[in-house]
Amino acid sequence: MSKLWQKNIDVNKLVENFTVGRDTEFDAQMAAFDVLGSLAHTQMLQSIGLMSAEDLELVQRELKNIYADIEKGNFKIEAGVEDVHSQVEMLLTQRIGEAGKKIHSGRSRNDQVLVDLKLFFRHELQQVVNETDILFRELIALSETHKDVLLPGYTHLQVAMPSSFGLWFGAYAESLTDDLEMILAAYKITNKNPLGSAAGYGSSFPLNRTMTTELLGFESLNYNVVYAQMGRGKTERVIAQALSSVAATLAKMAMDQTLYLSQNFAFVSYPDTLTTGSSIMPHKKNPDVWEIMRGKCNRLQALPNDVAMMTTNLPSGYHRELQLLKELLFPAFTELKSCLQMATFMLQNITVNTAILNDPKYAYLFSVEEVNRMVLSGTPFRDAYKQIGLAIEKGEFDPAKQVNHTHEGSIGNLQNDRIIAAMETLVNSFNFEKVSWAVARLVK
Amino acid sequence: MSKLWQKNIDVNKLVENFTVGRDTEFDAQMAAFDVLGSLAHTQMLQSIGLMSAEDLELVQRELKNIYADIEKGNFKIEAGVEDVHSQVEMLLTQRIGEAGKKIHSGRSRNDQVLVDLKLFFRHELQQVVNETDILFRELIALSETHKDVLLPGYTHLQVAMPSSFGLWFGAYAESLTDDLEMILAAYKITNKNPLGSAAGYGSSFPLNRTMTTELLGFESLNYNVVYAQMGRGKTERVIAQALSSVAATLAKMAMDQTLYLSQNFAFVSYPDTLTTGSSIMPHKKNPDVWEIMRGKCNRLQALPNDVAMMTTNLPSGYHRELQLLKELLFPAFTELKSCLQMATFMLQNITVNTAILNDPKYAYLFSVEEVNRMVLSGTPFRDAYKQIGLAIEKGEFDPAKQVNHTHEGSIGNLQNDRIIAAMETLVNSFNFEKVSWAVARLVK
Amino acid sequence: MSKLWQKNIDVNKLVENFTVGRDTEFDAQMAAFDVLGSLAHTQMLQSIGLMSAEDLELVQRELKNIYADIEKGNFKIEAGVEDVHSQVEMLLTQRIGEAGKKIHSGRSRNDQVLVDLKLFFRHELQQVVNETDILFRELIALSETHKDVLLPGYTHLQVAMPSSFGLWFGAYAESLTDDLEMILAAYKITNKNPLGSAAGYGSSFPLNRTMTTELLGFESLNYNVVYAQMGRGKTERVIAQALSSVAATLAKMAMDQTLYLSQNFAFVSYPDTLTTGSSIMPHKKNPDVWEIMRGKCNRLQALPNDVAMMTTNLPSGYHRELQLLKELLFPAFTELKSCLQMATFMLQNITVNTAILNDPKYAYLFSVEEVNRMVLSGTPFRDAYKQIGLAIEKGEFDPAKQVNHTHEGSIGNLQNDRIIAAMETLVNSFNFEKVSWAVARLVK
Amino acid sequence: MSKLWQKNIDVNKLVENFTVGRDTEFDAQMAAFDVLGSLAHTQMLQSIGLMSAEDLELVQRELKNIYADIEKGNFKIEAGVEDVHSQVEMLLTQRIGEAGKKIHSGRSRNDQVLVDLKLFFRHELQQVVNETDILFRELIALSETHKDVLLPGYTHLQVAMPSSFGLWFGAYAESLTDDLEMILAAYKITNKNPLGSAAGYGSSFPLNRTMTTELLGFESLNYNVVYAQMGRGKTERVIAQALSSVAATLAKMAMDQTLYLSQNFAFVSYPDTLTTGSSIMPHKKNPDVWEIMRGKCNRLQALPNDVAMMTTNLPSGYHRELQLLKELLFPAFTELKSCLQMATFMLQNITVNTAILNDPKYAYLFSVEEVNRMVLSGTPFRDAYKQIGLAIEKGEFDPAKQVNHTHEGSIGNLQNDRIIAAMETLVNSFNFEKVSWAVARLVK
Repeated sequence: MSKLWQKNIDVNKLVENFTVGRDTEFDAQMAAFDVLGSLAHTQMLQSIGLMSAEDLELVQRELKNIYADIEKGNFKIEAGVEDVHSQVEMLLTQRIGEAGKKIHSGRSRNDQVLVDLKLFFRHELQQVVNETDILFRELIALSETHKDVLLPGYTHLQVAMPSSFGLWFGAYAESLTDDLEMILAAYKITNKNPLGSAAGYGSSFPLNRTMTTELLGFESLNYNVVYAQMGRGKTERVIAQALSSVAATLAKMAMDQTLYLSQNFAFVSYPDTLTTGSSIMPHKKNPDVWEIMRGKCNRLQALPNDVAMMTTNLPSGYHRELQLLKELLFPAFTELKSCLQMATFMLQNITVNTAILNDPKYAYLFSVEEVNRMVLSGTPFRDAYKQIGLAIEKGEFDPAKQVNHTHEGSIGNLQNDRIIAAMETLVNSFNFEKVSWAVARLVK
Repeated sequence: MSKLWQKNIDVNKLVENFTVGRDTEFDAQMAAFDVLGSLAHTQMLQSIGLMSAEDLELVQRELKNIYADIEKGNFKIEAGVEDVHSQVEMLLTQRIGEAGKKIHSGRSRNDQVLVDLKLFFRHELQQVVNETDILFRELIALSETHKDVLLPGYTHLQVAMPSSFGLWFGAYAESLTDDLEMILAAYKITNKNPLGSAAGYGSSFPLNRTMTTELLGFESLNYNVVYAQMGRGKTERVIAQALSSVAATLAKMAMDQTLYLSQNFAFVSYPDTLTTGSSIMPHKKNPDVWEIMRGKCNRLQALPNDVAMMTTNLPSGYHRELQLLKELLFPAFTELKSCLQMATFMLQNITVNTAILNDPKYAYLFSVEEVNRMVLSGTPFRDAYKQIGLAIEKGEFDPAKQVNHTHEGSIGNLQNDRIIAAMETLVNSFNFEKVSWAVARLVK
Repeated sequence: MSKLWQKNIDVNKLVENFTVGRDTEFDAQMAAFDVLGSLAHTQMLQSIGLMSAEDLELVQRELKNIYADIEKGNFKIEAGVEDVHSQVEMLLTQRIGEAGKKIHSGRSRNDQVLVDLKLFFRHELQQVVNETDILFRELIALSETHKDVLLPGYTHLQVAMPSSFGLWFGAYAESLTDDLEMILAAYKITNKNPLGSAAGYGSSFPLNRTMTTELLGFESLNYNVVYAQMGRGKTERVIAQALSSVAATLAKMAMDQTLYLSQNFAFVSYPDTLTTGSSIMPHKKNPDVWEIMRGKCNRLQALPNDVAMMTTNLPSGYHRELQLLKELLFPAFTELKSCLQMATFMLQNITVNTAILNDPKYAYLFSVEEVNRMVLSGTPFRDAYKQIGLAIEKGEFDPAKQVNHTHEGSIGNLQNDRIIAAMETLVNSFNFEKVSWAVARLVK
Repeated sequence: MSKLWQKNIDVNKLVENFTVGRDTEFDAQMAAFDVLGSLAHTQMLQSIGLMSAEDLELVQRELKNIYADIEKGNFKIEAGVEDVHSQVEMLLTQRIGEAGKKIHSGRSRNDQVLVDLKLFFRHELQQVVNETDILFRELIALSETHKDVLLPGYTHLQVAMPSSFGLWFGAYAESLTDDLEMILAAYKITNKNPLGSAAGYGSSFPLNRTMTTELLGFESLNYNVVYAQMGRGKTERVIAQALSSVAATLAKMAMDQTLYLSQNFAFVSYPDTLTTGSSIMPHKKNPDVWEIMRGKCNRLQALPNDVAMMTTNLPSGYHRELQLLKELLFPAFTELKSCLQMATFMLQNITVNTAILNDPKYAYLFSVEEVNRMVLSGTPFRDAYKQIGLAIEKGEFDPAKQVNHTHEGSIGNLQNDRIIAAMETLVNSFNFEKVSWAVARLVK
């Protein structure tokens, strides 16, 4: 028999360890948002007569002090304290006495956690957007800088058509704009107020949920209180899906990078400090950063499935394991942000090989180009095709190795300005200022 | 030795069977969209001088005839014909001769498939939105009809607080509005023109991609041609994620239904024709429809992961297995639409139990209500709490079994009008008319 | 409103279409196994007095006729017949009257389906083992044939150390042996008799489950009847995991193949009939077969997750959606077997490049080799390392380009005989003869 | 611009933080196994003349000291030390000088990590088996104790047939035996020696891999060195699949528990210390432990997919992100073991409701029983069926509420002895003694 259930175990401790687990670790990250929630909630309580003006003043002053402490890094959940809400309440009552306890009127732990999570996720999503935008701009800059450097384009991993670094970098930039569409959808779903849903069935107090919605800068409410609770798990899933979209773009770029760094491609290179190697194998430039990024981003691609597996087939209403979703989501933001930063950093140090197409194995890249050139000069397609085919067969094919692509989005006409414009429109549609103003008003 | 590689096998047939597989089955579903693509492409070809006005007239007339045939159900990919594009071309050349072959100028099979898929997905997403909207309205109607019928609300699957059928139905309605946010994001990502990207690296022909974008009613372009190709797999993944969101809502509702139909809950019932049973076990009302729906929707919840697993770590550029994504996505639309329709149908026939709370096991539901009532009448919370606790302890607790919830989204104030408004705004933002107009213009 | 629920719909048809779906399509594949189950069940019924000797004789004779028809391909589930069990019963009663109906005594539809599935899966797993063994032998043969042909070994996709085609082919062979460990585990879990569990709670008839276990050649019983039912979903999941293991090996091999076929590696090649290309791009050898195989196998790698998503959080007891697992598992066997066959076929036609290492970019492969050679000749490691490092730096490194690896599993000592022995032991441990004998006895 | 890449950053630190991440945290858990690997490797080195007898003696003595320290908890990877291998080497050279560095001859970091992981996984799998066995015995004990207590059996979540706590507990016990088949397969795949594969392509030193295989108690070798490296990722995947099987059993049991604890079932109960509640809602017994267990086990069910997503489509050869799999696997063992322990603990404290079937809603449970009883007494089935049907219709059905099931695995004949025997055979087939002996011999 294992030693766990010997006579003298502290059952409460055992159960608590199992059920609480790493939760306070994540709770600590929500501290600032818990205070914001209480700042708004208490203003609302006073407005409906459930808190006196005097108590409100006390509570607001002290909550703002705690908020400032959190911002300065002077906050931790003390040993023995169950969660962030208890810690805040404890500090409050130590400082202002009984009034501190009144912040829980008209709230349940459930909707308090819900609003903390929403505020936290909203904040993290904003950071993801910022980091994505920085990487986007780096990619666009590289696309412009290297727009005339050609490289082979592959289909089926076979050398197929001329491509360019302008296209390659630009493609990943444009990919990020579509990823932001997913982030935006997740943001909209997140940015709705669940406060006032209590334990998921509402309250007999005459709460003013519209007021807390405005105070917290939410775009709207999760109206139906049962739905507000149902949003737990769902919010996490759609956010995970949105993050996975950015991650998929990074993972694909990382795969390209590891391939293009291989001696068999040698399309790009990096300073020695950014790769690992061996003095005895001086050719080795192991792209550890890109490999780790690929791994982390593929892990993130599996994240939505983890969330779905943990929440599917749960009937409506709160279930305790929803708490465990923090373990999945919170580190995911950290990981994705660090991947975005490292991708930007690596790209700032990339060198592209400008002489790739000198290698004779890439000569056939231009066979279609040559045919098209002849067609545009008036040769019927079939004749042009036959002529080039014959030249290739006889070993006499000697293409010009230059391309003259002019249509939208092609080598000679990247349309990066349009892609930038699309990105800017998207970033603006998040309307982050509204949130900043609301937060500033609450804590000023 | 297996018989496969005996001497006389037809190698070409063997390879074709393995690589083509069920593809023509799915291709047939794209036929109308393939014709639309060609209608737009040929107009553009003529505008840049790659097709004569005479050829264009011939081609347009005949493509419209084929389109009409498809609409009437008079189209199939004939045996031995490789794909939908070949079938259309074959019909065209049979009818108008050489001019029919010119529709491929300035296009590759790759961007032709890309545009067909985008048009097909766009159309299917519209249908999903329509079916979702119908279910939404049914849920709202039920929420209104039964807004005063109470049922127990659960947390931890424990009887917790009073809830209502108004809340329960309404919660799923509101859930669908958030699901449409994901559908909208997927729609926006889908609704961009990839035509002109050729094999993923553009073309030396002076294509006018802006023109085909407008003709096909796309909102914008996939500008960068490498990104246009990269959209294959990605589009499928984001669509799968969006569908999974609707599916998750349905699966959760289905789980609730199977539970509430159980004799241990008995909250709802259905006519015998909609359940299965046994004459010897007359009590049995097996909710087969809801169970199958739960299974299908959970299958759909796993779909995005299937797409990700098939596409992750593929370097940029086309890979043949991208074709297999049709096997995942095409049936998914059919499944989800039939689930949405069956959910609506079942709900149209639901009977709710109006006497649930008469069962004494639900009495404690009202303990918090009673405390709050006393607080609102002026009793300090602690006293109220103590009094009710004592009454319960002595078995003298006899609650009023009515609730007076007034805040936004609560039992007495469902805010279904707001939820409806949010839904309408969302549905309008798809701007489906633009697509309908463009299609009508192309085929008229 | 959608047209689905207009007045005159046939509700029964609607519900049936939704709940039955594609099920008869899969049921047809289980026909032979359904008959085997009935052959064993009726012998048992007679032994416990629930069927007369005369009825048994009639039933056995006719069931064997039906079995023979199925083997000849002369069996189908007729329109309007619900499932395979009903079709068999109908044929039986058409031919022998009332006695035909008695085959259902002491059985429920639930355990009848369970035993059919187990027998079907057992049979399919045997075929997977056979096809895996054929591919295994092809890989071993190639490993032996090309054991002296070197190719670069990569780490981080960087050229690292000398490898050989002997190692490369052999590695995939050995991988398949470990995959068979998973198949064996799945087979053992499958190969237990659920018959007699009725609807999952047993029966008041004095069934002899040990007897049907022996008759059907099962290794053992699912003893506990609740567990027998719980095996539905679980059996599918472990089989999916086992199949995914073989699929993962194939997918990885397919990825290597597409890379090694790229012009940037050019390590292997195939006849033109096995690749696709273009006359204008004569260099192109698109490895469509390997790409499609990679896609199908990655799809199979996602399969266990699909099963888990559909079954997790379902309480114990039968649920209707378990039926949908057939849609996942049945095609998976077909897919995997065809992938195994195509892999064997392709490998039978592979050509390996014997001159890879002549390319100067691979010279550094031998740097570690040279250091080790010097160490083995008595030079201290540090000195050897320094000397080779200097030679490389000065461009004077001119390695012997041969390797002398002798330890177990290395280039010069592949140990294919041991790997073959391990494979044979594994294949034998399935004890397929026992099943064959049992089946032969039942139908003779 | 984000602050990351300001001028004065320490690039090496930045790259290291990103690529190493949490790795040393996991490495520390492998310390004992790293020392075991070195103990075996150095014995082998001396046997082939690559280490002197004197050096071997020094090295062995000091490695055993380090091993003892690790066992006592006196070991940590110091700040600035890269990994566990470096830490061990550093300690060794601090204590015995240059001889300490020789432990790396004939090894690469790659095969050193591989062997550490295999030894670690082997050890953890043994612990999982132990904890599973303890839970198994608890379940069997409960099955025996409560074998006569009936409860309703459900199909479609509808009250269907009589079941018993004997069956219910026993079913989960038997489920664990099948789960151990998967664990056994994973154990066999794990328990093969990769040492000597160097960087995945073998070595020119005349290593004796058979010797280290025996010394480390491995059952066999990963023969082919390319396959040995290919085992990274694959080993993790099959282990994750095996763990997921146990987790699926626990998750299903946890779901049953939360349902049976609900007031709507009330089949089981627990002491207040093992549930959470509220003084104002005295009926509430929130099953937090089971909910958290369900969540953790569902997370584990998604684990194999995480591993597959991170490893699929990687060509053969080492890739840096394989390191990240530790983050997935290491905590998984800890989680699963704690779930097994808590399940055992909870079950030791379960109370079953012995009066469930007194509730009239369960009367129909016995309708099939009654029909069968009449059939066994000679009434033709159709007559019996009609009679009972009529009785039910008239409300005169008054069943005996007892069952007389006698066949194998039924309520009256649980066959727990057979299930126990199957479990014991399985546990013995792991042959853990062989490993214990080998380890004891190495460190004595």
